[in-house]
Amino acid sequence: MSKPLLQIALDSLSLEKAVADAKQAESVVEIIECGTILACAEGMKAVSTLRALHPNHIIVCDLKTTDGGAILAKMAFEAGADWLMVSAAAHPATKAACKKVADDFNAAHPELKVKKEIQIEIYGNWTVEKDAKEWVELGVKQAIYHRSRDAELAGKGWTAEDVELMKQLSALGLELSITGGIVPEEIHLFKEIKNAKAFITGRALVGEKGKQIAEAIRAEIDKYWA
Amino acid sequence: MSKPLLQIALDSLSLEKAVADAKQAESVVEIIECGTILACAEGMKAVSTLRALHPNHIIVCDLKTTDGGAILAKMAFEAGADWLMVSAAAHPATKAACKKVADDFNAAHPELKVKKEIQIEIYGNWTVEKDAKEWVELGVKQAIYHRSRDAELAGKGWTAEDVELMKQLSALGLELSITGGIVPEEIHLFKEIKNAKAFITGRALVGEKGKQIAEAIRAEIDKYWA
Repeated sequence: MSKPLLQIALDSLSLEKAVADAKQAESVVEIIECGTILACAEGMKAVSTLRALHPNHIIVCDLKTTDGGAILAKMAFEAGADWLMVSAAAHPATKAACKKVADDFNAAHPELKVKKEIQIEIYGNWTVEKDAKEWVELGVKQAIYHRSRDAELAGKGWTAEDVELMKQLSALGLELSITGGIVPEEIHLFKEIKNAKAFITGRALVGEKGKQIAEAIRAEIDKYWA
Repeated sequence: MSKPLLQIALDSLSLEKAVADAKQAESVVEIIECGTILACAEGMKAVSTLRALHPNHIIVCDLKTTDGGAILAKMAFEAGADWLMVSAAAHPATKAACKKVADDFNAAHPELKVKKEIQIEIYGNWTVEKDAKEWVELGVKQAIYHRSRDAELAGKGWTAEDVELMKQLSALGLELSITGGIVPEEIHLFKEIKNAKAFITGRALVGEKGKQIAEAIRAEIDKYWA
């Protein structure tokens, strides 16, 4: 159990905006994410550019990988992503294909400080008993627990059920990154999630105000995680 | 009930390869798809380039849209996509956001010959009774029925259960595009799917051999759809 990290998700429509946001946030985050919107807008050069500009950060690529796993994983890892998000809705063969690409990459590059990993991004219909256990059996170590951006826009808040599911996932051994309108005032909601790996936010961490928000989030983290 | 169309899915890692494949296949398909791999590799310029090169084809963009629906749909439609694929695993609010962007676009552009539409791409855990009915209630007209690329690579064939589910979806009024290792010899498997909208294949439709395969698929279609 270590303290949750901070992750900025870059979801702008242009690489120019994304690199500016990343530069403004780099001192307050450990993880920089090429979000789905940015990846679909600009392609893999978004990942390779962020990799080049931020050699000491963990770079995450969120393709919500749902099929074509081997090709997409190879593409993202070769562009410089450390971790790749894979949709929970993907066929088990797709998840296994992504995992194999990561494992093969790690085996070929024992010098890597940050190992390639896949993160199961939880969307769609799923259960802890069947689906999450399958992920763990496959050897997956990380999952992303979302409040959907669109659900968030539609006014859906975090619920007791969300927290209960996260506790169950954490109990299975999965490290959880938590995302969806994360604010300092709500960090306490997640205090029982022992395996909280990261909190992910978007533009909230950019610029001068972003520094203040990051500090406020870390102060809350310090209260609840040793 | 009209005859199913042919669609080529372009899933190369470079736009150069994709435009060459599209050019070679343009005479044998009605629909050209910017596949997820191409979109993630090259970004939206892949869609806008295909749109510019093929003004008289239907252009489909497969982002497997799972979140951030309004932004991704706007981006894809503005780049020139006629239809956008949206993951069945997306939150209902995401599907609704994509649908609204399409509807607003159509309302603002009554001159469009091909209306903007979203297609629910079926992945993950779902049921006809709950999920598919929700799509129809939202006003969605199209769905994509897949044999996952990775499942296909793992040797999974089309099953009687697949066909039964397609029949049920078709009976709900959904037009189905069918994909996953489509070959002329298997078109007969789908003959009871009244609302078959399109058959989607990848590189099989490229070049001289592609013309022969396309003709063979159309000959089979002519046997089973009036």
